[in-house]
Amino acid sequence: MDFILSRRAALGSLAGCAGWHLAGLSCARAASSLLQHQPGIATPQEPFLYFLTFDLTAEKRQDVIDLMRRWTRAADALMAGKVLPGLIDPEDAEGLSAKGLTLTFGFGPGLFIRDGKDRYNLAALRPAPLADLPRFNGDQLVAAHTGGDLCVQSCAGDPQTAFHAVRILASLAYGAATPRWAQTGFMPDFGKRKTPRNLMGFKDGTINPDISNPKIADRVLWAAPGDLPWMQGGTYLVARIIRMALEHWDRMKVAFQEETMGRQKQSGAPIGGHGEFEPLTLKQTDRDGNPITAQGAHARLAAPEENDGAQILRRAYAYDNGLSYVAERWPPWRQGNEFDAGLMFLAYQQDPRTGFTKIFERMSKFDMMNQFTTHVGGGLFACPGRLTGGYVGQTLLEV
Amino acid sequence: MDFILSRRAALGSLAGCAGWHLAGLSCARAASSLLQHQPGIATPQEPFLYFLTFDLTAEKRQDVIDLMRRWTRAADALMAGKVLPGLIDPEDAEGLSAKGLTLTFGFGPGLFIRDGKDRYNLAALRPAPLADLPRFNGDQLVAAHTGGDLCVQSCAGDPQTAFHAVRILASLAYGAATPRWAQTGFMPDFGKRKTPRNLMGFKDGTINPDISNPKIADRVLWAAPGDLPWMQGGTYLVARIIRMALEHWDRMKVAFQEETMGRQKQSGAPIGGHGEFEPLTLKQTDRDGNPITAQGAHARLAAPEENDGAQILRRAYAYDNGLSYVAERWPPWRQGNEFDAGLMFLAYQQDPRTGFTKIFERMSKFDMMNQFTTHVGGGLFACPGRLTGGYVGQTLLEV
Repeated sequence: MDFILSRRAALGSLAGCAGWHLAGLSCARAASSLLQHQPGIATPQEPFLYFLTFDLTAEKRQDVIDLMRRWTRAADALMAGKVLPGLIDPEDAEGLSAKGLTLTFGFGPGLFIRDGKDRYNLAALRPAPLADLPRFNGDQLVAAHTGGDLCVQSCAGDPQTAFHAVRILASLAYGAATPRWAQTGFMPDFGKRKTPRNLMGFKDGTINPDISNPKIADRVLWAAPGDLPWMQGGTYLVARIIRMALEHWDRMKVAFQEETMGRQKQSGAPIGGHGEFEPLTLKQTDRDGNPITAQGAHARLAAPEENDGAQILRRAYAYDNGLSYVAERWPPWRQGNEFDAGLMFLAYQQDPRTGFTKIFERMSKFDMMNQFTTHVGGGLFACPGRLTGGYVGQTLLEV
Repeated sequence: MDFILSRRAALGSLAGCAGWHLAGLSCARAASSLLQHQPGIATPQEPFLYFLTFDLTAEKRQDVIDLMRRWTRAADALMAGKVLPGLIDPEDAEGLSAKGLTLTFGFGPGLFIRDGKDRYNLAALRPAPLADLPRFNGDQLVAAHTGGDLCVQSCAGDPQTAFHAVRILASLAYGAATPRWAQTGFMPDFGKRKTPRNLMGFKDGTINPDISNPKIADRVLWAAPGDLPWMQGGTYLVARIIRMALEHWDRMKVAFQEETMGRQKQSGAPIGGHGEFEPLTLKQTDRDGNPITAQGAHARLAAPEENDGAQILRRAYAYDNGLSYVAERWPPWRQGNEFDAGLMFLAYQQDPRTGFTKIFERMSKFDMMNQFTTHVGGGLFACPGRLTGGYVGQTLLEV
């Protein structure tokens, strides 16, 4: 398991001492404990994903506490490749452990309030950044694949390892939470230090913030010092299942794909540029005075320069659910099976209101890419930091 | 692309000269041409699978010929990592090529006759081993995931590579065939020369025939000399989507899992044995006179010793389709989301009547494993050999 100690977070816990009292932890304890980030956020992205959400059925907060204790204990053992008698058999552990497994837990809005009910007396501790996302232009969110009171992001170097961990965790949830929706994903191997390509064939993740720089990570990724004490060392996850109309995309000329993306397909360079990591050509115009990167180009609309500096940390995966039956909305209005595939968009950020929502509000209206993509599901989750030796969520749940 | 020349097949083509005339190819041409097996059958099993079937919509045989020509040309380029102008862009080829891609094509019964119609005047050339499979005990085949006039098995070292190839082939099928069902799969990495484990945690494939021995391959895998001339160098594929009740399985004690499987979980050894590749303990009894490998154990029912020597070549993958909503058939009769996962069973053989059907007829009735597994889809396909320089299916279609 990867320990990343944030000096800022530790300082924040001191500064917010009153807050720690609120959370039922003594100031001395908070100060002396080391806060750690959950793995799977700032750690290297493993190539296979199993993302699973749950609806809580637990009636009492103690049941949620017991679940998070069981999950944390099992997750620590799974990530360390250890056997847990009666839970992780030596037979199952063999070959499934040393694959870079990371398990990340998140709390959805439903933990705090659901159908108007404050089931666990936690509503007052719902952080402001966990405000429900607005409905975006074009959203086609399917209820059965949206929301969730809890989430588990399981990532590993092997799909079986990622799935095996989720099976163990799901079995531990019996009686307290039931699976709501799941999405698996993969990241193709284009070699180390190369930006992977998504299913559209374009490089994906070129402008990700450099979170190895603590200043950038503290500004973009980790909960703000003024956020609730229990979220210190934590972050917020926006998950969106973004279906791509691949048959439609594959019929487009590369030149049109590039205009839509606002980047060149093979190199990843900006339109008119040469290298993947050159600045976008947002101001440049052609001899007729038209911008060489289209106003509605995806890369332009995603750029911090066009969003008052807003940035998020993308950890996206390709997803592929085989076929599903659809009726096309464009010529030749064909009915039949199409690829049910696209992007499992996972983005971590300090505050979704100034991160994902800030960026996607305009994008959902103007992005030329929208004719090829549809958001069909997803969720919003708070992924807290964790006290060393404690369980995930302890600083929230033990009031 | 992997060329495997079968002397027996070449001889067979001479012996069956009259047959070659039937198929419209001169005897001289058949004798001078080299027959090759399709890749993805006897070649090493790549870890990622995209299996896609199609319904033919083509009205004339010539349309099927044109499709198979386009597919063969594209498949050869894709497997070689080459660019095909207007079809495989250099942008898309980058990084997607050198991943061990194999593309294998098969013909389902519907190519020969469908809804009682001999659409392409091919009914007389339907091989006897391509007889419809019987309904097996416990079959729960969902029509939308069953059958198919054509199939493509795409296997590669990266899921994106396997999928990319299928997208190209699907785009080439427009107007001639529409996708019917698909299933992706993966094979966990347990290290080279180790039998992989399936999602039940047991080693899977221990008793596969050694097809590196041409005598065994000719007896078990490749079409018999007496089969139709166009099938020489070919083989038959039985595909079954076998859903596993993983939540149920995971609750069982390892000792009961082992009794059900008829093997030990960690080592893969027979019950009472020590090494994975030891003979099964089919005759041994305990001190009370009971067989130590249960009569209904899966490994016993699959063993050639118990099936008059019947053998098939398994190239199975784990599959994982996320969650689906189910009502359980056993206590606690829970309704809710369960893992939609299991085994994408792919088995190649000389004749399904004496291969899969011979073995599975008893197994479907008596296998203790059946309480954890359900066959929910699949298909039957003839995968012909190919003349060097020709296209897949040429020896059948050019009558």
